[in-house]
Amino acid sequence: MSIIKGFSKISKSEKIGLILKSIEAEKSCSLIETEYKDSQLQKQFEGLSENTIANFHLPFGVAPNFLINNHSYTVPMVTEESSVVAAAAKGAKFWSEHGGFQAKVISETKVGHVYFSFDLDFKIIEAIFNNAKMDLLNSTTHITKNMDVRGGGILSLELLKVESLNDTYKIELKVNTCDAMGANFINSILENLAGNFTRKVRQAHFENHFKVIFSILSNYTPACIVESSVSLNIKTIEEIDGMSGRDFFHKFKKAVDIACFDRDRAVTHNKGIMNGIDALVLATGNDFRAVEASAHAYAARDGRYQSLSRAEIVNDNFKFSITLPLALGTVGGLTKLHPLSALSLDILKKPKANELMQIAASVGLAQNFSAIRSLITTGIQKGHMKMHLLNILNQLNASDEQIELAKQHFSDKAISFSAVRDFLAV
Amino acid sequence: MSIIKGFSKISKSEKIGLILKSIEAEKSCSLIETEYKDSQLQKQFEGLSENTIANFHLPFGVAPNFLINNHSYTVPMVTEESSVVAAAAKGAKFWSEHGGFQAKVISETKVGHVYFSFDLDFKIIEAIFNNAKMDLLNSTTHITKNMDVRGGGILSLELLKVESLNDTYKIELKVNTCDAMGANFINSILENLAGNFTRKVRQAHFENHFKVIFSILSNYTPACIVESSVSLNIKTIEEIDGMSGRDFFHKFKKAVDIACFDRDRAVTHNKGIMNGIDALVLATGNDFRAVEASAHAYAARDGRYQSLSRAEIVNDNFKFSITLPLALGTVGGLTKLHPLSALSLDILKKPKANELMQIAASVGLAQNFSAIRSLITTGIQKGHMKMHLLNILNQLNASDEQIELAKQHFSDKAISFSAVRDFLAV
Repeated sequence: MSIIKGFSKISKSEKIGLILKSIEAEKSCSLIETEYKDSQLQKQFEGLSENTIANFHLPFGVAPNFLINNHSYTVPMVTEESSVVAAAAKGAKFWSEHGGFQAKVISETKVGHVYFSFDLDFKIIEAIFNNAKMDLLNSTTHITKNMDVRGGGILSLELLKVESLNDTYKIELKVNTCDAMGANFINSILENLAGNFTRKVRQAHFENHFKVIFSILSNYTPACIVESSVSLNIKTIEEIDGMSGRDFFHKFKKAVDIACFDRDRAVTHNKGIMNGIDALVLATGNDFRAVEASAHAYAARDGRYQSLSRAEIVNDNFKFSITLPLALGTVGGLTKLHPLSALSLDILKKPKANELMQIAASVGLAQNFSAIRSLITTGIQKGHMKMHLLNILNQLNASDEQIELAKQHFSDKAISFSAVRDFLAV
Repeated sequence: MSIIKGFSKISKSEKIGLILKSIEAEKSCSLIETEYKDSQLQKQFEGLSENTIANFHLPFGVAPNFLINNHSYTVPMVTEESSVVAAAAKGAKFWSEHGGFQAKVISETKVGHVYFSFDLDFKIIEAIFNNAKMDLLNSTTHITKNMDVRGGGILSLELLKVESLNDTYKIELKVNTCDAMGANFINSILENLAGNFTRKVRQAHFENHFKVIFSILSNYTPACIVESSVSLNIKTIEEIDGMSGRDFFHKFKKAVDIACFDRDRAVTHNKGIMNGIDALVLATGNDFRAVEASAHAYAARDGRYQSLSRAEIVNDNFKFSITLPLALGTVGGLTKLHPLSALSLDILKKPKANELMQIAASVGLAQNFSAIRSLITTGIQKGHMKMHLLNILNQLNASDEQIELAKQHFSDKAISFSAVRDFLAV
């Protein structure tokens, strides 16, 4: 195939035509069927990205009964994975009956950097930076004025060396972005700083030794941290899933401990936490790649990748907690542009960003609780495959009668695609 | 608010009613407007998750001109972030004119574990395991028979200690899951193994010292690895974005080197790679949380979190490459169940899983290339904000005429929400 030139410039129907040319034409219906009826809304939606040919769907569900800091929430979740919403709801319900989640934001600082090279003594560029610092800060006021009014803005500006790389340095900007995720805000300040710092270096006649490499926010946000925890006295739980409270919570702690020491498990354990958090992140129009990158890098912050959650039992008191970085926004970005993101924030009663952080951490903890609860009792497959059975049956075009028979048949049997297919073939 | 009981059991319209009760009623239209016209399709779609009240949309776009191992692909991408599809397409086009991507799968092994505790000498449980091993393997044939036929199945079964935890061990299962992501397959085998191993321990009369803790696949897949690379002679590039080929590619290498040594940058750098990969993962009905967790843990595999991509220049030869774990499937799971995932796989000409791994790695590399290209030349804000300008204008309900005027006005100015609002207010 030759290179397609100007693909982004042709109309949407021409794009669809080009793409469908080589595949079955009947598929086209599912493409256009998914548009908004309101053409203005559809146009706005398509403008979110480039070369948009359709609206991709993911199930938009809700997990009720989250009790966090004595507030009750119904949490909007967008996920394609069966059992994620069910597990979050189950975890939320259990803990709402046992005091709920206690969540708090530890700090909300975000960072960005101007990276540059300088091939003379560090002291020279350090002196130029220190002299320029106030001017650099003053030069950004046209960008920060609105954020300043809201109580945010620049917290500090520092010159640092880049470890292990000769002649390479960074200006570190720390900011508070209030209720915005803040990527555009931070990048705009940084690019402005880079230009003004270059002028300062030129004025000092060192421009031949200096080069800005790039300016960008960091998605690693170990100073934008939230924690959430649940606790109970294990003696108050007589029975849970056929186990005594004592046996259950000690086994539970063992399962969490394994995720603290065993990397193979830690990754899967944290993936389960993110199942819940990402579903809320997607629902509220936030950026799940940013959240994922920061969370997993944070899990490896000590040089050993480990669980984001911790369990302890002291004097029969069980405490289960999570601490992780979450750079979320409730204004700006997509939060208002996407009609269903706006709805998600409405369902959450229009939270501030730091409240959304607390909700997200609690959802992650609830998700983790339910996953471990299943793992250490019935096993993960029972609940998961029960949800997936319907998917398999739909894929095999089972009738309503067959679906009912299959549900009964597989209520006490291992479910696999081939087992379901064999059952239907009888 | 009191705890809602049986929320999952009430009808969808009752769920929507409950949720909308406390927020503006007019929002309801955007909820129901997003359903499939085909009610059977809608029912199947809602069955994917629990408590589904609507279909959440993300733009479904395509990036044409990916040349990978001399095959041409148009890559389906689902993302809410403006500029991701545009950047992928730009990177693909550049490299299709310079030899394309060379990709290969290094290995495709996936793992899972049965974790258990045993409080006597390790040698005892080791002997029981070794004696039981063949029986354990034979006991899984009813689960593996279809995978065996397709050329996959169990590769090995091993007993290992869990580091730093006393009395804690794991049976490690290695498998080839062919074109399936394989989570259900692996978990089914593991739960079967756990049950049968427990019986073996009981037969040896050590059941009082033994307890299965849980059985689960690992999302950490460092043996399910793919690499992709591009290369060119920098002397053949006379000019790129106003720079000489030599200056551009040396600055490019410096930017990648920073991401190898500086964690603040590495996280953001890898986040950019995942922008592209996740968009393809979502489009093809794969699980982005699994892919994210494995990729970032792999980035930290040596105890230091670093870039997933590498750049080198040897004798004027520039090579840019990526190596990462990607456990993807092209059969099973949602791949066929979601009409648009099935369409995505059709657009890619129905790839095998290892071909999809190569495409995904190449998309990640293209995304990374374009992001760094922007960063080291015009800066990230110019392209990004150009895409975002339209979002801001739509949010401010700008007329078509205002949109045209704003595009002209901001073609050479910094774009921010307040600047656009001020411009419209004039």
